[in-house]
Amino acid sequence: MNIHFETLSIATSRKMELINITSQVEEAVRKSGIKNGLCLVYAPHATAAIIANEDEAGLKQDIMKWLEENFPHNGKWKHNIIDDNASAHLASAFISSYHIFPVKDGMLIRGTWQSIFLVEMDGPRRRNVLIEVMGL
Amino acid sequence: MNIHFETLSIATSRKMELINITSQVEEAVRKSGIKNGLCLVYAPHATAAIIANEDEAGLKQDIMKWLEENFPHNGKWKHNIIDDNASAHLASAFISSYHIFPVKDGMLIRGTWQSIFLVEMDGPRRRNVLIEVMGL
Amino acid sequence: MNIHFETLSIATSRKMELINITSQVEEAVRKSGIKNGLCLVYAPHATAAIIANEDEAGLKQDIMKWLEENFPHNGKWKHNIIDDNASAHLASAFISSYHIFPVKDGMLIRGTWQSIFLVEMDGPRRRNVLIEVMGL
Repeated sequence: MNIHFETLSIATSRKMELINITSQVEEAVRKSGIKNGLCLVYAPHATAAIIANEDEAGLKQDIMKWLEENFPHNGKWKHNIIDDNASAHLASAFISSYHIFPVKDGMLIRGTWQSIFLVEMDGPRRRNVLIEVMGL
Repeated sequence: MNIHFETLSIATSRKMELINITSQVEEAVRKSGIKNGLCLVYAPHATAAIIANEDEAGLKQDIMKWLEENFPHNGKWKHNIIDDNASAHLASAFISSYHIFPVKDGMLIRGTWQSIFLVEMDGPRRRNVLIEVMGL
Repeated sequence: MNIHFETLSIATSRKMELINITSQVEEAVRKSGIKNGLCLVYAPHATAAIIANEDEAGLKQDIMKWLEENFPHNGKWKHNIIDDNASAHLASAFISSYHIFPVKDGMLIRGTWQSIFLVEMDGPRRRNVLIEVMGL
C-alpha cells in the first residue's frame, strides 16, 4: 500500500468564498501513482468546510446565501462574546471540514457536477488543505 | 491489502425518495472477503445524498419534510434561472454524497437503527452508487 | 498495512450534551503505532453525532441551541407517534455519525480549534464510539 500527501496553501480574499480546488486534488491523485483506493481532502480548520458540488455562478451565490440564512453572522451567539465568528464555527461543525472520494483505475471518482470546493466562512485568511491519497 | 468495488444502478421513481440499500452494501462487504477495513458508499451525484438512519415510515416522511423546509424547492435560488433543482444541489452539498463505515471481523459496523439510504432529491433518475471496501 | 480498533463506552448524563473525546482518539492513534493513514471515529448510533470544533463553553451552547432550533424536539414529526426522538434522528442523519482524520508522521491531523466531540442528542444513554486507525 502507498500513501501520498500534498498540502495546498490558499490565501482567501473575502469573508465568505468558494474556491474550486478540483484540479489540484486530481493532480495529487495523478502524482501519487495510486490506482485504487481513497482520496481524503481535509481542511484542518474550525471555520471552513470542504464540499463537492456544481461550479455554477448562481449556485455558488445560493450556497453562500443558504449559509448566511442558516448560520447568521449576527445571530445571538454566545461565542461572539469572545470572538465574532460563531456562525462560521457552527457551519464548519455541521457541514464538515473534509470530503472523501473513491480512487478507481487511477481516477478520482466524482460526479460530472461534483467540483471540489474549499468553503471560506471567516476570511480573508491563509488556509491549508491536506490531500491524502491511500491505496494500491 | 485488498480493494473491492461494486456499483449499484438504481432507477428512482419520484422527485424525492429514500431508497434502502443496506442489504446491497452488506453483500458487497461479504463478497469482498475483507475482514477489517473501511466501506465507502459513494453517490457520484450533486443532487443526491447518502445517509444512515432508521427505516421507519414516519421518520422517512420527517426526513423528506425537513429537507423540503430547509432546502425549499420554490426558494428564490439563482441556480433556478438555468435549471430547477437548486434545492437538491444545496441539500446534496451540505448533507454529503457519501457515508463511510468501519469493517470489523468481516462485518459492516453500523448501529441497530442505522439503515443505509440513497436520498433522491431530483428524481426520477437513474443513479449510481459506488461501494468500495478496502482492507485486509 | 495495519489496522487498530478501540471502542469507547461513554455514559452520557443529559438529553443533549457535547463530550470531548480528543484525548482518547489521540491515544488510540499513539497505541496503534501507525505513522501514516486514516483515523475513523464512528458512533454506531442513529440519534448521536461526531463533530470536530472548538471546545469553548459559549460555542458549545451555541451548537446545542442551533440543533434545537433546526431540529426542534417538539416539531410535528411523524416518528414521534411511535417514539419521542425524531429530532435526534434527523440531526444524526444530516450531521453524520462519524468524522475521519488524516494520520501523518504518527500524529492525528486536526486544526488547533478542532476538538473531537461525541454529540449526545437523545440521552442520557450509554454510547459506543469505535475508533479505527488504518495505515502504515
